[in-house]
Amino acid sequence: MAWESIAADKRSRILQSIPQEWLIGSKPQDISVMNYPEKSGIMSKDELAITNSSATELVAQLSSGQQRAFDVTLAFCKQAALAHQLLNCCLEIFPEMALAQAKELDAYFEKYQKPVGPLHGLPISLKDQLRVKGLETSMGYVAWIGKYDEEDSVLTKLLRKAGAVFYVKTSVPQSLMVCETVNNVIGRTVNPWNRNWSCGGSSGGEGALVGFRGSIIGVGTDIGGSIRVPAAFNFLYGLKPSHGRLPYAKMANSMGGQETVHSVCGPICHSVQDMKLFVTSVLSNEPWKYDSKVVPLPWRQSEEDTIKAKINSSGLRIGYYNFDGNVLPHPPILRGIQTVVSALREHGHTVIDWTPYKHDHAVNLIDRIFASDGGQDIFSVLQESGEPAIANIQDLVNPSLSKVDMNELWDVQLQKWKWQCEYLEQWNQREEEAGGEIDAFIAPISPTAAIRHNQFKYYGYASAINLLDWTSVVVPVTFADRNIDPKVVDYQPVNALDGIVQAEYDPEAYHGAPVAIQVVGRRLIEERIMTIAQEIGRLLGH
Amino acid sequence: MAWESIAADKRSRILQSIPQEWLIGSKPQDISVMNYPEKSGIMSKDELAITNSSATELVAQLSSGQQRAFDVTLAFCKQAALAHQLLNCCLEIFPEMALAQAKELDAYFEKYQKPVGPLHGLPISLKDQLRVKGLETSMGYVAWIGKYDEEDSVLTKLLRKAGAVFYVKTSVPQSLMVCETVNNVIGRTVNPWNRNWSCGGSSGGEGALVGFRGSIIGVGTDIGGSIRVPAAFNFLYGLKPSHGRLPYAKMANSMGGQETVHSVCGPICHSVQDMKLFVTSVLSNEPWKYDSKVVPLPWRQSEEDTIKAKINSSGLRIGYYNFDGNVLPHPPILRGIQTVVSALREHGHTVIDWTPYKHDHAVNLIDRIFASDGGQDIFSVLQESGEPAIANIQDLVNPSLSKVDMNELWDVQLQKWKWQCEYLEQWNQREEEAGGEIDAFIAPISPTAAIRHNQFKYYGYASAINLLDWTSVVVPVTFADRNIDPKVVDYQPVNALDGIVQAEYDPEAYHGAPVAIQVVGRRLIEERIMTIAQEIGRLLGH
Repeated sequence: MAWESIAADKRSRILQSIPQEWLIGSKPQDISVMNYPEKSGIMSKDELAITNSSATELVAQLSSGQQRAFDVTLAFCKQAALAHQLLNCCLEIFPEMALAQAKELDAYFEKYQKPVGPLHGLPISLKDQLRVKGLETSMGYVAWIGKYDEEDSVLTKLLRKAGAVFYVKTSVPQSLMVCETVNNVIGRTVNPWNRNWSCGGSSGGEGALVGFRGSIIGVGTDIGGSIRVPAAFNFLYGLKPSHGRLPYAKMANSMGGQETVHSVCGPICHSVQDMKLFVTSVLSNEPWKYDSKVVPLPWRQSEEDTIKAKINSSGLRIGYYNFDGNVLPHPPILRGIQTVVSALREHGHTVIDWTPYKHDHAVNLIDRIFASDGGQDIFSVLQESGEPAIANIQDLVNPSLSKVDMNELWDVQLQKWKWQCEYLEQWNQREEEAGGEIDAFIAPISPTAAIRHNQFKYYGYASAINLLDWTSVVVPVTFADRNIDPKVVDYQPVNALDGIVQAEYDPEAYHGAPVAIQVVGRRLIEERIMTIAQEIGRLLGH
Repeated sequence: MAWESIAADKRSRILQSIPQEWLIGSKPQDISVMNYPEKSGIMSKDELAITNSSATELVAQLSSGQQRAFDVTLAFCKQAALAHQLLNCCLEIFPEMALAQAKELDAYFEKYQKPVGPLHGLPISLKDQLRVKGLETSMGYVAWIGKYDEEDSVLTKLLRKAGAVFYVKTSVPQSLMVCETVNNVIGRTVNPWNRNWSCGGSSGGEGALVGFRGSIIGVGTDIGGSIRVPAAFNFLYGLKPSHGRLPYAKMANSMGGQETVHSVCGPICHSVQDMKLFVTSVLSNEPWKYDSKVVPLPWRQSEEDTIKAKINSSGLRIGYYNFDGNVLPHPPILRGIQTVVSALREHGHTVIDWTPYKHDHAVNLIDRIFASDGGQDIFSVLQESGEPAIANIQDLVNPSLSKVDMNELWDVQLQKWKWQCEYLEQWNQREEEAGGEIDAFIAPISPTAAIRHNQFKYYGYASAINLLDWTSVVVPVTFADRNIDPKVVDYQPVNALDGIVQAEYDPEAYHGAPVAIQVVGRRLIEERIMTIAQEIGRLLGH
């Protein structure tokens, strides 16, 4: 069958999986669809109350019998169905399976009067890399359509064990190696705040869906910004843990087996409280017993407590930068950073300058790593079905690109390690100068607020942190505002890309676009960085 | 200069670094030199008391002013000088620098009446991969002679900070990829128990030196048995931690940047108590702040306590195997395993059969990884000086060997991960069958006791554990005995290598050779596995 027919069939199967009564009769023309559920006529008041809750509230109700898993699942199935019709964000929609799973959980609760686990009855959306037994994981590749999974991914399995309900799998860009979400199977996913904007990527389906509250917690993955950029573009929190904190085993992936920089998985959600619910629920099931890459590190409450105590006594000591030396962020992002810096200072925390250390070198290294097989992995999957490369990766998918040779790879890996160690030395020196511990630094996650389609150019703010393998949490801060974020006049770019990115800024086009920052700390200290992110959110009044 | 002259000059510089009065007049002809220090006339009674102490005793004395760092250092410098003359085990001998360092520590103690750190004044020997500012790190390569280090390795630095004194760097095989110790710089290092036997490798200089008590704790590295085999062959304890527990940054290495299977560093010593002293001293200096690959995991006393409590209540549950399906160990090793199994059972512990899972597959994978650059890394270093390959690696060092291509590497890395996860599943299943937690398994570390030179053929018992990246501690058990370890009659080998290894067994030649086992547990649980190793040692009466 021609690839176009396979894709068309898949598209129609996705739509057919939505019950008739959840279909939108006449589609709204608004660019923002954030308030569509309320006026849809499809969601009941109770259902809206559910989708507008926090995950923490919901599991409290579910675990005490005040709420049934069936009702919660139904509400999210409906809102996700609306999301898909408006934003084109799902690759799998399976309310029947979800409601059956919810009924089982309700039966369990009725029988034992206790929840099966800390996520009892909570719907969680999954990026279409996570396998769910019985479903497809196409990952937006035509060639992978029609292959049904015989086993859950490890994370799916542990979430299921914790009581989570699965109901949708969300869209990704072809290859995953892009921060916008478009593929040949369902096309482009758009931003619920403004459909002319990108939802980010590669976990863009999650970003759009969670932003729209078609999901309360979504699972994404990140090798160069793929959790953090969608979180930022949809005004959400996102956690990119260090490699080895959360289980990735048995998921589908692009460039599988590439271990120089690891893709990691983590939640996209509306609060750090919900983020903690997710992380602690997974860790309580000892993922290191199922995935060899996971470090045996339970949730360390003492690490969270240390930061909380510091917040309430001496205050935090936080570094910050707003320019990595490669590409200057747009005015709304610079203002976002300044907003956080001011909020921290006003509340007695210490904020110090942080000089990013050789980020240009880091970005070059990671780019070489991503292209180290000359695109063969991606190209061979495209070739299998005959589908073309999406515009965003056309350069990458060229079988004549030369591969990195084994000794070159080893050299790159040595350079990576050296740079990482030098960065640690920078940190140590900065602490010495500051006369005490530095708890984190804050930085841009993308040089732009939620961007117009096909304009995303520079991944370096995100990918340098991946090369460090440090913990990062995205915190939503504010919205671009044409009245206070004017275009810089006579900007002198430091390089061509810097000029291109800066020129793209248009106060009108960006007006209202979500602005976020990332909070970054050393490796495997998720407890600390999440707690700092929570404090920043609190100071910002979220 | 011809490589022969460079090597000869280096050899003579090593000898010249030994003071006249420590030179052995007429060398003993005995095959065993274990009791030579006592009869040498070079070591005083006090010095012998020092070198026969444990590290734990010595630091207790040093930290309380009962012993001077100078005296302890002098004793070990002298005994190491004897070791080198008898066993040919050192690539660097620097008593002057060591004694100066010791004097500084004594001055510090005199002034402040307290130790600088937990290893105050304790001499520690270093495999010649660790850099010490001001010295060479030739690693047995002629091409690297004459290059002086401008910086300590991270581990050197942290040991120094803890108060350790450095006095020798020990020999390694050319390339490090061999379990016997021979190079073109100083030739072959031999076993102090019997100089016709190998001291093991690649940390063979450490094995011989610590076995001879020319060192109390030596630092080795292990990517396929290189700590554990020398520990086993010299009747010592050895720790191969998981990758990321102890810092490796800024050390010299072979095939540097190869990250598919990581080389790790760890101590070779006389007891688990001393091993713990080493590990806790390093961890107390937070190595993760200096080496990006180190996991932020302090010594977890609770993990040690859990095992101790279990030992004193329900008892441990330990798996065991004595045959990996590839190469059957010699009779002394099989008896060694049985000795440990019996001792455990007699003392109320539960011992269950453990079926090694696809070790043939694992050994094939790791062999592909080790040869993935077609030997280019090693070959290019040899070419630089013109020295020839040692016999043991001649096959590996062939520039016409084909390299593994990037996508093949990714496939190998996926296979590794899959196998690791399957092994975890095996463990989980075994626990389910056993009705409770399994604490570790015991297994051979080499199919033979300390082997005659040039006979070492099969690394699989060691390297399969490296591919898992699991924690392993070698425990010395007994000695080969011609009277109770007869050759197997009519052995039917399962493959050619199995036949060759079994045929090599000769009860006469092996009589008296150290026999050891390894205690293995999952990733990053050094506290648990060390405590179990200690209990096994206790049961064996060490």
